[in-house]
Amino acid sequence: MTDYQFQPIGRIHSCFKEKFGIPRQAGLVPEATATIEIFPPFDRSEAFRRLESFSHIWILFVFHKCLQHRWRATVRPPRLGGNQRVGVFASRSGFRPNPIGQSVVKLTSIETNTGQTRLHVKGIDLLDGTPVLDIKPYLPYADSHPEAVAGYAPVPPRADRPVLISTPAQSQCKTLEQSNHPGLSRLITQLLAQDPRPAYSQDASNRLHGMRLWDLNIKFRVMEHHIEVVAIEMIEPPGS
Amino acid sequence: MTDYQFQPIGRIHSCFKEKFGIPRQAGLVPEATATIEIFPPFDRSEAFRRLESFSHIWILFVFHKCLQHRWRATVRPPRLGGNQRVGVFASRSGFRPNPIGQSVVKLTSIETNTGQTRLHVKGIDLLDGTPVLDIKPYLPYADSHPEAVAGYAPVPPRADRPVLISTPAQSQCKTLEQSNHPGLSRLITQLLAQDPRPAYSQDASNRLHGMRLWDLNIKFRVMEHHIEVVAIEMIEPPGS
Repeated sequence: MTDYQFQPIGRIHSCFKEKFGIPRQAGLVPEATATIEIFPPFDRSEAFRRLESFSHIWILFVFHKCLQHRWRATVRPPRLGGNQRVGVFASRSGFRPNPIGQSVVKLTSIETNTGQTRLHVKGIDLLDGTPVLDIKPYLPYADSHPEAVAGYAPVPPRADRPVLISTPAQSQCKTLEQSNHPGLSRLITQLLAQDPRPAYSQDASNRLHGMRLWDLNIKFRVMEHHIEVVAIEMIEPPGS
Repeated sequence: MTDYQFQPIGRIHSCFKEKFGIPRQAGLVPEATATIEIFPPFDRSEAFRRLESFSHIWILFVFHKCLQHRWRATVRPPRLGGNQRVGVFASRSGFRPNPIGQSVVKLTSIETNTGQTRLHVKGIDLLDGTPVLDIKPYLPYADSHPEAVAGYAPVPPRADRPVLISTPAQSQCKTLEQSNHPGLSRLITQLLAQDPRPAYSQDASNRLHGMRLWDLNIKFRVMEHHIEVVAIEMIEPPGS
């Protein structure tokens, strides 16, 4: 059969500048917002007519920064502790023959000012800059199967770790929330409650970790019974 | 941004030889079975390891026999009677910039005899020969949102038309069920209950319609209060 050539219709703008910290599926971190920039000629507002009457949409995307890797027949999903292999087609890993991903997100609003179209969404799990191939409405009667049996991933990953924000980090949060980053402390709390560390290194330790969100480095430590946000640092843009 | 090139990993073998009669979404006609043939080198059995522990899978496919058409900014979904336009991104139409579709189906079994891999599925809505780009497990915790609000398509399309099979068609069904086509009368009943005719021509009429399944032509008439299967004809293969 012939190959197919696809052209991105848009691009994700999200807080996730690197893979570390990204939720493992869409919807797990409601506070993770993003904007989908639509490229011309696909940005004509009529191409999105009546999409605003749907609460959820599918994003079909190309796994970003995975393309340099070849596909693998088996992968080690984080869900299994990173030490058991399953088939790539029994996983949602990006190391697939055709690295196309699908995420359901909540549609907050559609902005069509100034001739450009941008979709605002919540619950994203995608790296900033991810190429978007398609947007479709979510149809619960066709897409929702709560009764489905899901082998080794029957329930969401654990996300109940208590997150404490230290007093200095709290005051940094407050300042940032009043300027560019409303909801920052909720976002940090939801992200860290999932424990973003790789499965094979999830013991308490005194090590200081960094999770990048926009131009911020969220410094945290994993303690025995909680995760502590130690500080929030601004990352200087390169060349400044 | 650059274009992406994707290579089919497999192909659908289904009863649907033409568009007329295909259910409008996956899952609407449980009896519609299909086989997904996986091409080498993707057919190695380890690439599907543990997929059998999932009850539902996603098929990402390329809309078949739509490729000769260009994308359209707006389409007229059958759901709205075929006379109202919505944006292509507010629809599941195949006339999209990147004609990639996604269907959830039930996974019945995985056959890995004789070095080849074939997936057997139920609830298909895809034309025979459809190129498959990807197979992924369905994850209810991420993919199932029964509470989602779905604008102009909140519920499945009507599928409650009583279907009567005439006495001669019943005896044809019985013979075919005993040879190649088990479950044929259930399949025909489920398909016709949806009324496959285009929305703009859905009045009762005396016209004889034909719906093709495999090498069979299902002849039916739409009456005022029911749909009647009149006869089942074998289609001679071309050149025979």
